[in-house]
Amino acid sequence: MTERVILSVDAMGGDDAPFVVIEGMDLALKRMPDLGFLLFGDESKILPLLGRFPRVKALTECRHTPDAVSNDEKAGAALRSGRNSSMRLAINAVASGESSGVVSAGNTGALMAMAKFVLKTLPGIDRPAIATYFPTLRNECVMLDLGANILCDADNLVQFAVMGEVFARHVLKLNQPTIGILNVGSEDLKGHDSVKQAAAILSDTNLPIRFYGFVEGDDIGAGTVDVIVTDGFTGNVALKTAEGTARLFSTSLRAAFKSSLLGKIGALVAMPALNKFRDRFDPRRYNGAMFLGLNGVCVKSHGGTDAFGFSCALQVAHKLIKDQLNEGIKADFARLNVEPSSLDPASQEE
Amino acid sequence: MTERVILSVDAMGGDDAPFVVIEGMDLALKRMPDLGFLLFGDESKILPLLGRFPRVKALTECRHTPDAVSNDEKAGAALRSGRNSSMRLAINAVASGESSGVVSAGNTGALMAMAKFVLKTLPGIDRPAIATYFPTLRNECVMLDLGANILCDADNLVQFAVMGEVFARHVLKLNQPTIGILNVGSEDLKGHDSVKQAAAILSDTNLPIRFYGFVEGDDIGAGTVDVIVTDGFTGNVALKTAEGTARLFSTSLRAAFKSSLLGKIGALVAMPALNKFRDRFDPRRYNGAMFLGLNGVCVKSHGGTDAFGFSCALQVAHKLIKDQLNEGIKADFARLNVEPSSLDPASQEE
Repeated sequence: MTERVILSVDAMGGDDAPFVVIEGMDLALKRMPDLGFLLFGDESKILPLLGRFPRVKALTECRHTPDAVSNDEKAGAALRSGRNSSMRLAINAVASGESSGVVSAGNTGALMAMAKFVLKTLPGIDRPAIATYFPTLRNECVMLDLGANILCDADNLVQFAVMGEVFARHVLKLNQPTIGILNVGSEDLKGHDSVKQAAAILSDTNLPIRFYGFVEGDDIGAGTVDVIVTDGFTGNVALKTAEGTARLFSTSLRAAFKSSLLGKIGALVAMPALNKFRDRFDPRRYNGAMFLGLNGVCVKSHGGTDAFGFSCALQVAHKLIKDQLNEGIKADFARLNVEPSSLDPASQEE
Repeated sequence: MTERVILSVDAMGGDDAPFVVIEGMDLALKRMPDLGFLLFGDESKILPLLGRFPRVKALTECRHTPDAVSNDEKAGAALRSGRNSSMRLAINAVASGESSGVVSAGNTGALMAMAKFVLKTLPGIDRPAIATYFPTLRNECVMLDLGANILCDADNLVQFAVMGEVFARHVLKLNQPTIGILNVGSEDLKGHDSVKQAAAILSDTNLPIRFYGFVEGDDIGAGTVDVIVTDGFTGNVALKTAEGTARLFSTSLRAAFKSSLLGKIGALVAMPALNKFRDRFDPRRYNGAMFLGLNGVCVKSHGGTDAFGFSCALQVAHKLIKDQLNEGIKADFARLNVEPSSLDPASQEE
């Protein structure tokens, strides 16, 4: 028998919590029967629901807390006053070793602030980053940061690159993943100082990383590289622009099919093909933003997703734990710090 | 009879110049018979082609120049050494009043540097910005800057907002266009200093502008506002991310239809509906990036577009001239500078 993977779950985060959360746990158990849960939240709301999902009930330990972090609460305030919130207690359980990771669909800023405060960053990492998968013409890529760090210096970007590289090897199972820095052109001269300096450090041939160079926004969908590194402002805008464009496309396509009788018939005939297309780009499949660089697995679900989407976020956490991502990041940063090919080019001049 | 609109055209810019350029001029004349051209470039390449397009030949004055700006030339170098290039002479003709605007598919950085040097900026504008249309769920919006200014302070963003507002009124023909600043969240506290300060200035109720507030990347496709203001780094990434996502979608959709017999039949039946959809998102229709804030109309075509795409860039220039955009910008900035509701909130304290 394999060991059970225990996840802390914030029952109170997301638009339709706790119903969507618990139904999502049920869907996740169908695909990952080795899961188990510590569920944090208001028992008066949770217990009646657990009665409807006996499979979840059997594998869940419920911990009552009346407090919850609201969506409009500022991160600092949530950190100070939310010590007994479902979100905070779920994170605490990771730190105490009772669970192997935490998933919440609540306030992103509060989740990051609490996770950073409780779990701390891994050795060698100044700031955690938010990462997610993107579908591409080739397969999929991972991009970070998506909003945790509005301003990033070159060192931050280099750390994101190393974390992303480890992620691509451990989780995407790529042998020699390629890394690109998001910029406004592929020439060395383009962009601002942070991206230019980060590119100079990553171009250092001693680093055990396949650095591709600069990539542009259209390289995300093209799948030019496996890991795309950027600051949190640009990454957040790129992520949401891609989501908005996908929504514009799918809405307009649906409207086009519905605009005429022939369109409706054609859509009906092509239904199986269209369903495959729709499934590939289903945003729920890409739900589950990963907080990388923390001493513990922490995954943020979209607040507005449904049970299937939430189950995908649980799957992301499950995968990060099984693939031992954090052990890989720790090993890589330790190696980088002892070898002469350190992250800091100045150290080579000694 | 209406007055002829004379455009300077750089015959040597773009991947398949001058053929695509001249064929594009031919297509443009079909839609805009009041056009006339000054065509700058290598006569040995141009004259044989003009023989094949008699309609263009009849309405074009050809000016020979052996020099052309290459795509990999740096902007500064092109500015110094390209005094006799087709691009530079095309711009000069706008400054001398021989033409009303210039269109080039050549090196973007060189075009901006030369246009700024020769045409100068309009009064009240520190830096010109690159703008383009985006299709949205509602209709279309305009976004600026898309790459001319990598770093922008609050004043730059405010100037972009005013230019974008004038553009939306004069060219999109909107009565009271709404303006949004691109950010990583809609709350006032999000983002870096430039966007926060710009939002504070634009929120000043004395300004004759409908400032919506912050928007996020997915608001571009949603059409939440008519004008989206951002720095050139973020705008360029957003533009290209949207383009890449659109390409990923259309390529995958085509592959889905082709993956099965039923898919192929369905696509055939729904062809008229699909064609309407395809036309709406045809990237060539959105070709023609506008350099706003210059004392003259300057439009940049994609280097890789075809004749139809180039004709759309010519159409954009034609429209900016007919709609008297620059006169509108001049009037608005003059008005802003004399009224107590100046762009600079400090001036109100006097």
